[in-house]
Amino acid sequence: MSKKDKLSTEAYKGVRDFYPEDQAFFNYLCHACQSVAERFGYAEYHASILEPAELYKAKGAESEEIVNEQTYTFVDRGGREVTLRPEMTPTVARMVAAKRRELGFPLRLFSIPNVFRYERPQRGRLREHWQLNVDIFGSRSLSADAEVIAVAHALMLQLGAKESDFTIKLGSRAFIDELAKKYSLAPDVAKLFTQLLDRRAKMPAEEFEEKLSELGIPNEALSPADLPSDVGEIISLLKESGVTNAEFDPSIVRGFNYYTGVVFEIFDTHPENNRALFGGGRYDNLTELFDDEPLPGVGFGMGDVTIQNFLELRGLKPAYVSAATLYLATASPEALPHTTAMAEELRKNNINVAVDFGEKKLGEQIKTAAKQHIPYLMVVGADEIASGNFVARNLDTGEETKLTQNEIVSFFNNN
Amino acid sequence: MSKKDKLSTEAYKGVRDFYPEDQAFFNYLCHACQSVAERFGYAEYHASILEPAELYKAKGAESEEIVNEQTYTFVDRGGREVTLRPEMTPTVARMVAAKRRELGFPLRLFSIPNVFRYERPQRGRLREHWQLNVDIFGSRSLSADAEVIAVAHALMLQLGAKESDFTIKLGSRAFIDELAKKYSLAPDVAKLFTQLLDRRAKMPAEEFEEKLSELGIPNEALSPADLPSDVGEIISLLKESGVTNAEFDPSIVRGFNYYTGVVFEIFDTHPENNRALFGGGRYDNLTELFDDEPLPGVGFGMGDVTIQNFLELRGLKPAYVSAATLYLATASPEALPHTTAMAEELRKNNINVAVDFGEKKLGEQIKTAAKQHIPYLMVVGADEIASGNFVARNLDTGEETKLTQNEIVSFFNNN
Repeated sequence: MSKKDKLSTEAYKGVRDFYPEDQAFFNYLCHACQSVAERFGYAEYHASILEPAELYKAKGAESEEIVNEQTYTFVDRGGREVTLRPEMTPTVARMVAAKRRELGFPLRLFSIPNVFRYERPQRGRLREHWQLNVDIFGSRSLSADAEVIAVAHALMLQLGAKESDFTIKLGSRAFIDELAKKYSLAPDVAKLFTQLLDRRAKMPAEEFEEKLSELGIPNEALSPADLPSDVGEIISLLKESGVTNAEFDPSIVRGFNYYTGVVFEIFDTHPENNRALFGGGRYDNLTELFDDEPLPGVGFGMGDVTIQNFLELRGLKPAYVSAATLYLATASPEALPHTTAMAEELRKNNINVAVDFGEKKLGEQIKTAAKQHIPYLMVVGADEIASGNFVARNLDTGEETKLTQNEIVSFFNNN
Repeated sequence: MSKKDKLSTEAYKGVRDFYPEDQAFFNYLCHACQSVAERFGYAEYHASILEPAELYKAKGAESEEIVNEQTYTFVDRGGREVTLRPEMTPTVARMVAAKRRELGFPLRLFSIPNVFRYERPQRGRLREHWQLNVDIFGSRSLSADAEVIAVAHALMLQLGAKESDFTIKLGSRAFIDELAKKYSLAPDVAKLFTQLLDRRAKMPAEEFEEKLSELGIPNEALSPADLPSDVGEIISLLKESGVTNAEFDPSIVRGFNYYTGVVFEIFDTHPENNRALFGGGRYDNLTELFDDEPLPGVGFGMGDVTIQNFLELRGLKPAYVSAATLYLATASPEALPHTTAMAEELRKNNINVAVDFGEKKLGEQIKTAAKQHIPYLMVVGADEIASGNFVARNLDTGEETKLTQNEIVSFFNNN
């Protein structure tokens, strides 16, 4: 094959390759999500990325546009229209509706699916990302809202954040509806009001107040003397369980057609990155596409890219260390049987060992271990085999530790 | 929405929903794969399911047909032809070629991707499954072949299989080439010979021998006095590392265009299921689509469905237990603050607890815990709160254990 026929090694536009370093971080993130969700009694589920396109079309004209212009949708060879899921909620709704009798409520579920959006190339945004989804179904109790927010809070702490690093802002649909009623807003004006609230953080305070007053709403209306009752109750439940960084913010509205109760967003408090990291809220009837039995739910979704940016900015992203603890270099072909036997013995003692078969010079073997971020290297050659004395070299610090054959296992079990 | 407008709750044809029970098994399988692969020094990687279609077209006419008829391939809105990966090998080749200078060789990689095949509906086969991929790149040593087979063997043991439950059968391309030469087979006859070997297990021994003799090859040619040297060396290396169920089988050929050295398959020894579970082998130049630097590799792929069938047949599939250890039922609305406080305290002690907010009768709450396979239930009500005496009920056995408030943590930490 001539050079010009060679293929590009680039990934498809807008998606990522996960090399070992990337995957290690991704696994770290998943384990944090899993351990926190399971601590609160949530069970993991999953599904295929392929869904019937009708699942996303049924919501009406607005989402029809999303399906047509922002999803990967194609017709399969059997004439079925298929969509790569753009979000997990319709899927979990389908799954819950299918086994309603067997599942038991309240039902706590979580998943870490990849989701796809066809973004216009010029925006430089990702077309695939992973998203933790945490939901509790079948409860109307505000304790369920508080619990889901407590899960989000616990996850932030699990990832190393302090309470001062983020704020939990709660908005309330009931509160917005009451204001619309109080100021007699026509439906289209009420919609403008909601949209204005949604953009509040993106404009100067003066501009916001001016536009608000144009709609006939005084600025003071957004700072009520008493919190809306649902928000107040949730904040109080959160305080009881040690979550003290939650506050009312009437401008949190989050796609109001979808949510029906309290909504929330986790904000980074960093002065240079004061933005929403993720959020969620309560919805009324998750399964109405599938049946007529009501099913309330409350949940949130957290994207892996946003949270990775947060952890990087805060210095909370863990450094990469290879899963292998030790690289065994082979000084000469004759030493190889000893290297492999030694590796096997160490593996029996739960030490993760990679072997170099000695096809290159020792210097190259050491470079391989360093490139792969394996923390320790040990050379196996005629001298080491004859004397039974080995040297464990820490490839980060250069520190060398002399070990007899008998000391090797305990050294690596303690390092 | 009227009843007739309701959507079906079925998944897209040929893919699976993973409810908590299914996902728990999938996680069990993944953890087994990860822990074994990492024990041998393999690092995990991952990539998007979306790949440029050209990645699968470059191999020539035969795979062109596969791309056109057996993959999910569509044109995106930017005019790019995209394929949902049917296998992981082209992806890992692309990734390795892209970062050749940084990765270091030998390079050990593993991944557990989902892969897609457009199967004709009538066959009833799955269109998406997950597949462990284990590969070592950049070594020509037969020790690399032996190691990869040892990883497959260790994985089988990790999943609970005994050596007598499976056989590792090794074939050799060099051996087949030599036979073709020895019996002066024309290229087209040599191809028929390979195809016949591949179908050997699917026909009576007599039919096989007859067809073999039609090609001009005596049956004895397949039972050489001496093993082919590569196969012999690998079997001997495997024996040294305690793998004693490997044997030569000349009929193991596995898509010969792809593999260039020794190939292997793991066979179930169960009399009613005597078939290949998974396999792999050595290939010559993985990255030739991308550059001219040679890169040898050896690896295997194992599908989740096949191995699940094996584990079920052998009684090795673990029973499902919820990740939550304890379900706290709430006897009355007044008890709820106590329930949530108690749950929180237990969670601090690393116990996974789900709370019922007490919206239903106690009997219904107990049913919920049972449906969700949560092993223990404890009721929190006025009596329990007043006395400080609780009862932990094992929902499997019905066994009840009386516990004072102070005994709860240690009871669940030991159960």
